[in-house]
Amino acid sequence: MNGAECILRTLKANGVDAVFTNPGTSEMQLVAALDAVDGVRPVLGLFEGVCTGAADGYWRMARRPAATLLHLGPGLANGLANLHNARRAGSGVVNIVGDHATRHLALDAPLTSDIAGLAAPMSHTVDTLENADAISRATADACARAKSGGGAISTLIVPADLAWSPAACAIETAAAPGDPDAPEPSRLAAAADALRAGAESVMLFLGGRALCEDGLAAADRIRRATGCRLARPTFNGRTPRGRGRPAIDRTPYLSEFAEQFFAGVSTLILLGADEPVAFFAYPDKSSRYFDDSRAVIAPAPTGVDPLAALQELAERFPGGDAARGDAGGAGEHPGRTSGALTPDTIGLSVARRLPPGAVVVDESITSGLSLPAHTEHAAAHEWLDLTGGAIGQGLPLAVGAAIAAPDRKVLTLEGDGSALYTIQALWTQARENLNVTTVIYNNRSYAILQMEMLRTGANAIGDKAMSTLDLANPAIDFCGLARSFGVDAARAETAEGFDDLLAAAMERPGPFLIEAMI
Amino acid sequence: MNGAECILRTLKANGVDAVFTNPGTSEMQLVAALDAVDGVRPVLGLFEGVCTGAADGYWRMARRPAATLLHLGPGLANGLANLHNARRAGSGVVNIVGDHATRHLALDAPLTSDIAGLAAPMSHTVDTLENADAISRATADACARAKSGGGAISTLIVPADLAWSPAACAIETAAAPGDPDAPEPSRLAAAADALRAGAESVMLFLGGRALCEDGLAAADRIRRATGCRLARPTFNGRTPRGRGRPAIDRTPYLSEFAEQFFAGVSTLILLGADEPVAFFAYPDKSSRYFDDSRAVIAPAPTGVDPLAALQELAERFPGGDAARGDAGGAGEHPGRTSGALTPDTIGLSVARRLPPGAVVVDESITSGLSLPAHTEHAAAHEWLDLTGGAIGQGLPLAVGAAIAAPDRKVLTLEGDGSALYTIQALWTQARENLNVTTVIYNNRSYAILQMEMLRTGANAIGDKAMSTLDLANPAIDFCGLARSFGVDAARAETAEGFDDLLAAAMERPGPFLIEAMI
Repeated sequence: MNGAECILRTLKANGVDAVFTNPGTSEMQLVAALDAVDGVRPVLGLFEGVCTGAADGYWRMARRPAATLLHLGPGLANGLANLHNARRAGSGVVNIVGDHATRHLALDAPLTSDIAGLAAPMSHTVDTLENADAISRATADACARAKSGGGAISTLIVPADLAWSPAACAIETAAAPGDPDAPEPSRLAAAADALRAGAESVMLFLGGRALCEDGLAAADRIRRATGCRLARPTFNGRTPRGRGRPAIDRTPYLSEFAEQFFAGVSTLILLGADEPVAFFAYPDKSSRYFDDSRAVIAPAPTGVDPLAALQELAERFPGGDAARGDAGGAGEHPGRTSGALTPDTIGLSVARRLPPGAVVVDESITSGLSLPAHTEHAAAHEWLDLTGGAIGQGLPLAVGAAIAAPDRKVLTLEGDGSALYTIQALWTQARENLNVTTVIYNNRSYAILQMEMLRTGANAIGDKAMSTLDLANPAIDFCGLARSFGVDAARAETAEGFDDLLAAAMERPGPFLIEAMI
Repeated sequence: MNGAECILRTLKANGVDAVFTNPGTSEMQLVAALDAVDGVRPVLGLFEGVCTGAADGYWRMARRPAATLLHLGPGLANGLANLHNARRAGSGVVNIVGDHATRHLALDAPLTSDIAGLAAPMSHTVDTLENADAISRATADACARAKSGGGAISTLIVPADLAWSPAACAIETAAAPGDPDAPEPSRLAAAADALRAGAESVMLFLGGRALCEDGLAAADRIRRATGCRLARPTFNGRTPRGRGRPAIDRTPYLSEFAEQFFAGVSTLILLGADEPVAFFAYPDKSSRYFDDSRAVIAPAPTGVDPLAALQELAERFPGGDAARGDAGGAGEHPGRTSGALTPDTIGLSVARRLPPGAVVVDESITSGLSLPAHTEHAAAHEWLDLTGGAIGQGLPLAVGAAIAAPDRKVLTLEGDGSALYTIQALWTQARENLNVTTVIYNNRSYAILQMEMLRTGANAIGDKAMSTLDLANPAIDFCGLARSFGVDAARAETAEGFDDLLAAAMERPGPFLIEAMI
């Protein structure tokens, strides 16, 4: 067994069995080893951002890490933007990055670069294999690190000589991360006291690990007992929503609306989420919503499982233990939309057509501002946000979500500008025949920037400025792009047309793209 | 005037008047300032790797830096792979990277990342604006740094508050870099002695700044006087070639052939190039071609202009001062090709159809192995290589080259796998109506990896390994991709068909793509 095979066997032994890859020469031993190791599935991306975004989507649905396999510094660099999103989602990813053979590095051959330096800003840990006898140990540790703290970015650099040299080591598994710290009773008591006293002026702010079905049920119990509000960050890794599930309000993206959203809150209780702040700063505006006149309580500081803290907190409110699962109300199927195609009619169609258990990947940017309201009573579904604001996440995220959850329909709601950073993901959707429907909101512009331009205090938008914000010249044919990558596609120009296409796509397995001309 | 306008006016005053951009909210003031400053041209890319690759191509043709304008850490990250190539080409680039307002950074909003840390591995210098009174000075310095040492990657991070705050400072220009050191006479004498003694066992190895028309003429004078060989690295930023120019041999990519290429060399004289080494390491093979038994002389160490050293060296060989410009021989127009379309028939058509003064962007990978030989006697042209090995350079490089040299035809020779990393560049070619013809060698695979797989000592390629190296399932329609981005395109299936399409494309202004089914 050489080092490469040892790495793959160790990944498999540690529960990592999907590898999203765009390999090069320095990774050829790892590629060859794929055939020697059963049960590790390689998935090829045409661009590394597809691979890292897919690994993020995989974690969000499977709750265990996938690996990426990337080519040297530039290959890793191409994947960093979606690693940034994965890091902000709290996803666990094991990046395997090939490097030149150790003896080759000193020669500074053209592809040489500082891989560890590139990896550090977007990784929680970066390690480089150095010892042929410790390859399995180091790989197992990298897997364990990806699972630690509820999910982390773990990067392992593999010099080519360690991949091709004999590695006689036994395959190791790394101990799961140690038990998290127990919640401190005093913090829980403070939160409980505030909840009892504050009613609707207290907001339970849930995100990350606390915002699962169990966490939502616990939070809803507290809400029933105290009248508190439930809210979540604008961007959260995965949020269970829809009929039969307790409703939780999403923080508005626009800070003007977020300020109103938080206006009546005297006490904010954070569980799995940080204190919400504005996404960007603007001249003459504060970036913080919570100044020192309001209380912010964090019952689960670093090291404490926020879900456990939330559940313990809920146990202090037995009065809220009403029938679980009906808090969201039944809602009404929206009627069939008609007329002009708009973000609102799309939202209504999505609410009507979404099949139970669907996964919604949301990178709809400005076009999606009303989506949360429209879809609140859709069939139960999982909602995956653009967590780090690095656009180009949606199509790759759908790849990984579909591979992790092959029995679910994945629906990607995607802005035209955002789609174009990682449009190559469509090819992987075709190649793997993934059950993904992509809706492109084609407004022929970076609409959010036209809005932000005014919000940042810039004056009227001149011709040259506008030339950097519009995508109309020439118009981009998303159906043509999809078909060229092997994904069937159709264009919708009316609300009825979109509704028909979406209904058919929800019934049809495999990938499909709808270009929505809004 | 705010800081953003101050930055743009300073760029302009320092000769930087093209900005390749993919901006976001934190760069809105800079975008707005575009309308206030005459003579700075914004060029929008749909993906940041298009912007950085274009800036590289711009430098290679204009010999002065362009700017990029990128959005925070993830935007910069998407541009790093082509900055790696630019760095390896010795190109000068001024990266302007927006960051959050200074007061916003401590809040760790979702888009926050360590921009300086991301920039460092691919930049020669990284600076962050901190003082509103010194914005012009800092920007001018960043421009000067991009021009230093023959071209460097200079990154300037601009917090949003510095862009939107008043900046009353005067517009400054930075002194050009100081004069380079004079070549040491003793080193020149050693090189001259070796040349006199060694005849064809001496190789003048030219790259970078030394490999311009003047440098080639000087080297050819030495060759005529001494019988030495002229050679260049496999990958060089820009190489003048073709009829009327002295021939210079390209180092083969494959180390097996490179070893033969260097076999008879007793003394290697480096001018503007480093000692050649293997691109990758392989088991049981040395990565170095020159061991200690052979002499390697560097008459122009760091700080010395290699072109000046070369010209001084040539003055020691007045006997070689024959008529300049005919060294390459007239060559024959190759006849019209017919039959099956192959990389060789494409090479012959390129040689036949290339118009004088054309710029060839070469990212043809395995399909281009015979291109240098076929095109040696084509009309005089400039050849731009994939300098850093980070594929995805060709289409963006052509954007920048075409903008820097609008009177030349740009011909991009591009592998299918490589094209797909930055395929979005086609849209910018359409939008700016650039005079670029792109040839895609469509072999439906990462052919080089299938070759490298065997070279790295891996055994037969199994099904799973092959699944990561082939691009046939599904087949990708490059004509469809081009048209969807607004670039007209046609497919060639035969040698005659390709020759006709290429001939027409060379006559036709604006962008065009030929999908060559080889």
